[in-house]
Formats: sequence, C-alpha cells, structure tokens
Amino acid sequence: MGAGKKYYLGFDLGGTNMVAGIVDENYTIIARESSPTKAGRSIEVITSEMAEVSKRAIQKAGLTLEDISSWGIGMPSYVNPKTNLLVHANNFGWKNVPIYEHLQKHISLPIYIANDANCAAYGEVLAGAASAYTDAIMLTLGTGVGGGIVMDKKIYSGYDNMGAELGHTKLVFNGIECTCGQKGCLESYCSSTALIRKTRELVDNHPGTMIMELCGQDKEQINGEFIFEAAKNKDPFASSLIEEYICYLAAGISTFITIFRPEVIILGGGMAHAGDFLLEPLNKQLYTSTFAAEEIGIPKVIQAKLGNDAGIIGAAFLEKTMQR
Amino acid sequence: MGAGKKYYLGFDLGGTNMVAGIVDENYTIIARESSPTKAGRSIEVITSEMAEVSKRAIQKAGLTLEDISSWGIGMPSYVNPKTNLLVHANNFGWKNVPIYEHLQKHISLPIYIANDANCAAYGEVLAGAASAYTDAIMLTLGTGVGGGIVMDKKIYSGYDNMGAELGHTKLVFNGIECTCGQKGCLESYCSSTALIRKTRELVDNHPGTMIMELCGQDKEQINGEFIFEAAKNKDPFASSLIEEYICYLAAGISTFITIFRPEVIILGGGMAHAGDFLLEPLNKQLYTSTFAAEEIGIPKVIQAKLGNDAGIIGAAFLEKTMQR
Repeated sequence: MGAGKKYYLGFDLGGTNMVAGIVDENYTIIARESSPTKAGRSIEVITSEMAEVSKRAIQKAGLTLEDISSWGIGMPSYVNPKTNLLVHANNFGWKNVPIYEHLQKHISLPIYIANDANCAAYGEVLAGAASAYTDAIMLTLGTGVGGGIVMDKKIYSGYDNMGAELGHTKLVFNGIECTCGQKGCLESYCSSTALIRKTRELVDNHPGTMIMELCGQDKEQINGEFIFEAAKNKDPFASSLIEEYICYLAAGISTFITIFRPEVIILGGGMAHAGDFLLEPLNKQLYTSTFAAEEIGIPKVIQAKLGNDAGIIGAAFLEKTMQR
Repeated sequence: MGAGKKYYLGFDLGGTNMVAGIVDENYTIIARESSPTKAGRSIEVITSEMAEVSKRAIQKAGLTLEDISSWGIGMPSYVNPKTNLLVHANNFGWKNVPIYEHLQKHISLPIYIANDANCAAYGEVLAGAASAYTDAIMLTLGTGVGGGIVMDKKIYSGYDNMGAELGHTKLVFNGIECTCGQKGCLESYCSSTALIRKTRELVDNHPGTMIMELCGQDKEQINGEFIFEAAKNKDPFASSLIEEYICYLAAGISTFITIFRPEVIILGGGMAHAGDFLLEPLNKQLYTSTFAAEEIGIPKVIQAKLGNDAGIIGAAFLEKTMQR
C-alpha cells in the first residue's frame, strides 16, 4: 500500500454491473464509473474492462494512478490464498482462474480481492450503520444470502479466507435443497428467492390474497416487495408467510449470536428494505429464539445504511484488513 | 502475570471434582491435587476449597506461590467482562456472583476464568491433538456439548467473551427442546444424553438388540458405550442409531467449517472414545454434508488426546490468551 496516498480504488464486480469508486480517507466516494458486467465473457475481457472502468473513475476524480493506494475488489467468489486462484464464480463460469495475474496486466497497484458480502459488512462497519461498533455480522438478504463477519474493525473470513459463508450454514436439518447442492442452508429459507418460491407454492390455496392483486394475477410476477406490501396491509396469507420467514431468519441469526455475540447484526439486501416492519418483530423473535438471551442480552438487528456503496467502500479499504 | 515465573496454576472446576494442576512451560503437569466439588455448597466455601486444593498442588510440586505466574480456572460458566460477575453456573446454583473477589481473598495471583470447553480446546491446541495447528474447533461430546474455538493459538469466545457456545447453535429448526430452554440445539441431538434418550425411546421396537443384552435388560442402564459397542458388533438397531447420530453431528460441524474453515476439528468427551469407529464415517459424511467441500476441501475431524488434562493445561495458560 502506498504511504501517504490518500485515495482508494474500490470495485464491486456484480453479476449485472461492475462499479468502480474512488474513496477518500473519510470513506466518501468522490467519483464513480460503471459498466454492465455481461457475465459469461472471458476473464481476459472482463478484467480488461474492470481496469478501464477503474481508470475512468480515477480520471473523473481528477486524480492519477499515483494518487491511489490500492485496488480493492469485491466479487461473489473468493481467492484461495494458497493458490492465489479465484476458486469459483458461478455467475461468471470461472473456476480456478489466476485473476490477480489478469488484473495486474492492466493496473499496477496492489490488488486485494474479497467476497462481496464481506466487503459490504466491512463498509457498513467503517462508514455505515455499524460505524459505532467494532464487531458486527451482516447478512445480505437478496437472491441469495451473503454473510460478512467483522471483528475488531477487520473482516474475518475464516482461517483460509474462504469461510464466513453464513448463507450456507445449516438452518434446517435435511431441509430444502440449496443452490449449492447442500440441504437446509440458511439461504434456502431466508433469501428473497426462498420467500417467493414458498409464496408461489401456496398462493393457489389462498384465493383473494392481496399478493395476487399486487402482481396483476400473474404468479410469475410475485416478488418480495409485493409480499411485504400485502403483509403490511394485514393480508392474512402474506402475514403468515412473513411471520414464518422471521422465525427462520431469527433461528439463523441466533446461531451467529451464540457463536460470536457481536455488538450488532446488520441486515442488507432487498429484503431489508422492509425496514422496521421486518426488524421489530425480528428483534422480538430473536430474543425468544436465542440461547441465554435473558441472562446476557442479545445484540440488536439493524438495517444497513449504505446500499451498494457499502461494497465499494469496503473493497476500497481491503488493504487495511487483508494480508497478501 | 509474573515476569520470569515459569510455572502456571491450572484449575478445572467440574460439577463432580475440582482439580488443580501445576503446569510447566512445556505444558507438562508436574503436580496435581483434587477434591470432590460437592456442588450446591456456597461460593464462599467452594472458592476457599479451590484455594486450598491449589496450595496443596503448589506444595506437592515443591514450589511456593512466588514461583507461579497466574491462576487460570476453567469452569462450566463464564464471567461477564462488563460486570466481572460469573453469569450463571447452573450446576452450582450460582447466578451473578463476584467470583474473582472471593478467589482473591485466598490467593494473591492474577486470576483468569474461562469456560471449561474453551480451556479444553486451548489445551489441545497448545499441547494435544492439535498442537501442529493454530486454528481449531473442539466439540466436547458428553452429557452436554461444549464448544471451543481457537484462532491463531488463542481462545476466541466472542466479542463479549460469552460466545462460542457451539452446543447451543441451532441444528434442527423447531427441533427437540434443549436443557437451555431453546429448541433444536446441537446439544439436544449430539450429546450422549441425546443418543441415550433416543435409544430408550425406540428400544422397545427392537427386541433382541444387543444393546439390551449389554445393559442387562435394564433400559435405565443404557449408556453411550453400550450403543457404540452394539454398533461395532453390527447390531442393526444400534448401527442405525449411530448412523443417524453421525448425520446430525456432521451437519452441526459443517456449519462451523462453513464459518471458520479451521485447520482441524477436535472431538473430545465420552462419545469421542469411540475413536475411528466414529471418526471415519463422520469424516466421510462431513465431506458430503459441507458447503463447497469438493472445491475447497474440508478439515479433518480428529480425536482429542489429553482427556481431562486439556482443561487444566488450557486453564493454566489463560494468561496468554485473555485480557483482564
């Protein structure tokens, strides 16, 4: 990392878009550039475009490469520190690719790569919802469930850097099959995909539910927002779905509390947009569902604050949390 | 901790016995003394006896208090670092007691107290089955299920020191009620108590099982050893019980791997005495039951080596892992 350099290049490589942000020492994104990822293209093409988008962001900020301390990248995968290969990125169709080598061809900065959910958690602790804390756990509840663990203001991702996959901890013994091939993962009960799937399965038994109204009577259009909207309007079917969802989520979070006892739990991703409507009953349920809550208390679940910026800010500061 | 002092006083306060050990810098217990705990007595009486047993051990080692660096104590409870009170020790009937104050009256050494399962894990990493590693998770499978996490050769017990309660992570959503009041805890499926309970429930449906032979046809005498013994002899009922037990245990361990990806998992406690008969199928099942095992591998489950000494050695060296 560059001594005296005061700007950081944070990069979020998502399945749909890639975004580069220039972040200053106060965790403010002073410039950003983006481009569609078009996943499915080769690693050569995508890493070359990542560099281009990054250079545009640097230029937009009125800076040069010399002003930048490092290039931190969050993406939905992880690098095996023993091999330095990107283990697998399902969305991209990559497996064991030498991503550092590819990136270095284009930009000569120290490069740090971490899982995007870890970056988001780190960003929220550095500058977002959990900035008052040092130890937090974040769950990103979207199409999948991402997990990030921050201890003492640093990312914890397991001994070999490939842990903290909180979405793939077991929630239901021998439960629903997950996209990962395992059964009963937290993700297969607490992602928006899981909630929507369950709703579609059961909706025919609940004629007149507001959910069908909201989705224009087209089951395929059901989404998380509609389900929460209907529940807010006291639709009985939607309410029972959300109630059950909260029980699953509380059970999952209770395990993380029982292990880590963090200061705070952060929820991000699409499902967290429900805000207090989700958080209030969740916090209540969590108290009931967690080991020794009465004796020693439990941390509060709060909503993420930075949205997608969390991942960029977290990635930008990976140099402060990772060894390479 | 005393500079230049080369002996450590490790203490294991169990529900049945209390043991003091003098441990040297090579993790060897050079002297030990013990006494029945007689749980149920007041904290004044028990702490006074703890001091006495400890002093006897020091004397037995041919040392004086001046040779001892600190007094480290493992017990089935934890101290709230905010209040310095022992939160609760169910076996003892204590709740929020100022245990440090009581102990200090008798022996003027720096005192460190930690959960006994953490001490055992730490002892195994310092000097036992996991001495070649820095990052390990240990499960103590006995009447209950204790958990210990060691990272970078230090105990990790959560932000507030009251975490790492691995036995009370959720294994089965809405499952069997646990002694802690929660439902579906790992402990309520993977303790010897759980295995024995299940066996007693089902044994009447399996006339002729070797388990009943081994226990002299008295259901109340069924224990873990008999069940494993019958399974080793290919008794079908016992084999199916052990098979199911291994599935539960693998699911529980898979969650810890997915989070921590430690170098090794250590099993201790009565159930671990089954040795390879348990470990071989468990390691196989774990490979099948763990997220991304094929892509990134999984750590091996091994048997603890030090027995009860692990807790004494771990306790003795708490000064190297705890702040006070």
